[in-house]
Amino acid sequence: MKEIVRIGIIGMSGRGSGTMQMLLSMPDVEIKAVCDLYPDRAEKAKLRAEELRPGTTVAAYTDYKRLVERNDIDAVVITSSWDAHGYLAVAAMNAGKYAAIECGGACSTDECWQIVRTYEKTGVPCMFLENCNYGRQEMTLLRLIKDNLFGEVVHVQGGYEHDLRHEIAYGHENRHYRYDNYLNRCGEFYPAHALGPMQKYLNINRGNRMLTLTSMASKARGLHEFIVKSKGADSPYAEADIRQGDIVNTLIKCAHGETMLLTHDTTLPRPYSRAGRVQGTKGIYMEDRDSIYIEGLSPNHDQWQSFAEYYNNSEYEHPLWTEFRTSGVTGGHGGMDYLVMRAFVESVQMGVEPPLDVYDGAALMAITPLSEESIAMGGAPVAIPDFTDGKWIKRGPAPKSKYALDTVNFDLFGV
Amino acid sequence: MKEIVRIGIIGMSGRGSGTMQMLLSMPDVEIKAVCDLYPDRAEKAKLRAEELRPGTTVAAYTDYKRLVERNDIDAVVITSSWDAHGYLAVAAMNAGKYAAIECGGACSTDECWQIVRTYEKTGVPCMFLENCNYGRQEMTLLRLIKDNLFGEVVHVQGGYEHDLRHEIAYGHENRHYRYDNYLNRCGEFYPAHALGPMQKYLNINRGNRMLTLTSMASKARGLHEFIVKSKGADSPYAEADIRQGDIVNTLIKCAHGETMLLTHDTTLPRPYSRAGRVQGTKGIYMEDRDSIYIEGLSPNHDQWQSFAEYYNNSEYEHPLWTEFRTSGVTGGHGGMDYLVMRAFVESVQMGVEPPLDVYDGAALMAITPLSEESIAMGGAPVAIPDFTDGKWIKRGPAPKSKYALDTVNFDLFGV
Repeated sequence: MKEIVRIGIIGMSGRGSGTMQMLLSMPDVEIKAVCDLYPDRAEKAKLRAEELRPGTTVAAYTDYKRLVERNDIDAVVITSSWDAHGYLAVAAMNAGKYAAIECGGACSTDECWQIVRTYEKTGVPCMFLENCNYGRQEMTLLRLIKDNLFGEVVHVQGGYEHDLRHEIAYGHENRHYRYDNYLNRCGEFYPAHALGPMQKYLNINRGNRMLTLTSMASKARGLHEFIVKSKGADSPYAEADIRQGDIVNTLIKCAHGETMLLTHDTTLPRPYSRAGRVQGTKGIYMEDRDSIYIEGLSPNHDQWQSFAEYYNNSEYEHPLWTEFRTSGVTGGHGGMDYLVMRAFVESVQMGVEPPLDVYDGAALMAITPLSEESIAMGGAPVAIPDFTDGKWIKRGPAPKSKYALDTVNFDLFGV
Repeated sequence: MKEIVRIGIIGMSGRGSGTMQMLLSMPDVEIKAVCDLYPDRAEKAKLRAEELRPGTTVAAYTDYKRLVERNDIDAVVITSSWDAHGYLAVAAMNAGKYAAIECGGACSTDECWQIVRTYEKTGVPCMFLENCNYGRQEMTLLRLIKDNLFGEVVHVQGGYEHDLRHEIAYGHENRHYRYDNYLNRCGEFYPAHALGPMQKYLNINRGNRMLTLTSMASKARGLHEFIVKSKGADSPYAEADIRQGDIVNTLIKCAHGETMLLTHDTTLPRPYSRAGRVQGTKGIYMEDRDSIYIEGLSPNHDQWQSFAEYYNNSEYEHPLWTEFRTSGVTGGHGGMDYLVMRAFVESVQMGVEPPLDVYDGAALMAITPLSEESIAMGGAPVAIPDFTDGKWIKRGPAPKSKYALDTVNFDLFGV
């Protein structure tokens, strides 16, 4: 087991810098190098890392190849723009370094195959950093599902429902890559937050798999109206031909007959939601009400019960969260950023497969180009590749760990 | 103008009997005849009607043809099983009687065409009795949308989310027709409650139309589990091969780029919901939170506001509902059953087209067989017929009335 995990980070935007700072709060992690296409960003990150760990030297690159080839790095964390996730993960694995990919969808299914085939060739693991898999509500749901409280789960849904108009519209000014995607593509750009947890609820790649999807996009109006309002009708931005529909819904059918509904909703005014919903033969959960109803367990027939009565109760809460709450929650997005990164760091330390592996990541990232294809073909169903080449039928849970997402290993927790 | 509207009712189940009693509460309505395939039901309804209006005679039939041919009837209300709605409406119109069709989907799109062509041939109107169009929340939303509070509406959704396991599973014992449908078909069986209001929000058949849909169904588990639990695993019912998926989601694309999402969810434990959602460039409504957010109007940025602050406020509430509340709400389902029936009765009295006309009804009823086709073909998109033969492009609002659903005619209300 490695005492210290030595990391390089590629992509030093807001997300990359935040991730670097969080990693530097972990005594068993060292940052050896940072990389960004913008030299000022790389330099700023280097100086910040050296400030946080006085006496250390951190290299700053604009060429990722120089970072991945270093001999003193165990793992590469990829917090770049979406379209670079695939080839950066491939480069890291080819150089023998564990890869960690931030949330985002692919541009082609072949990108996802490249990640899978590189893993299979090199044997070097790759983890998809879906933080929401470690959210308190999501982990509680995971435990309730594995404990059969919902009975047989037949349908799940979720979304990325987040008003990002300000970030997107000012993309060219603040170096954010979202805007160019919205100008040119139309699809389910950001399936990870909803689909990451769903995959684990439904045993995807481990006894089940996603078979087909259909997608439909509404017209695109929100961003244009926002631009006109904020930059003026005579701004050149107001003439932009925005392709991404305001609401994109994607329906996915699984091999064992379950359905999933994903919603992408980022260019209209609205309060934030991940719109989680789980339905089984014994009950239903609905995030937008923060409510649950379990037949025979909830106190009143056919009436919602506050979900807080579950995630605030160690009889139902996931033990990782009970431990985390007891020891003091830390890290961004309510703590889940910390937990997902610990899951990665500890997998590198132990030299084992991470809880969200290359197959989970590939299936997740592929939803984006597949949804684009379906929308482009008027909602035609498209097949989701089996990235496991049939191994999903007999694959069991990921290695036992506190961070496992296929089983709940109660014996690993002191609580 | 007719002072008295003379009505015959076909289908004297629970819904038919309730409708008859409500009609008999209206002094300007007379019931002349009732009809049911079960003679005891018809006879019971006849006796009940004569009891409620002492001194009158009500005919009871088992053959609908004898009812529709009577010369003393102005209108026929059809509260039969779903599969009979089409030919009964055709028979009524052919006999010169206004037809009113209760909620339900068709079995083929040609049934819908038959209704449309019969109306066009005879000139006799046909109304679809979608009560939810007259719900308090739905009417308030209609007003807010027509007043542009949501900005440009780009997406709407709704569902029929109602645990009907008890009613369905005992269908053969209580003469309910739902069970046989669940045994043999898989589709969006009950689009009306969600889609009726949506059609009016998005000007369907009057400047807009529904173009295509895709549907996806989850596996069917809820009803079987319920049957095993309630009748025992060795009951012959436990062997039934149930075809209707527990959750059926349908995505609809409109000519002007809006999307609609319909959910059918009737065989799993859950609290009731119609799952309404409206999204535009200025705001969002969500029934499951009983909440709304209108940018610049709601008091807190990006935070939900109780929708009750709108439907309880005559500045936003639909004036029909303000009047209804003031004069005393009556009738089933919170009053909307009464309003939709008044809309029909008053259309017959005035000899005008009803607010939900033959084109609205045909488009609505057609969603059921089209969703079955899409599901059967693995989610393939299917075209929704243009039942107006292109007239939707130039059709204006329905005739001015208190019950109008295309415009809000404030001048007709004393409030």
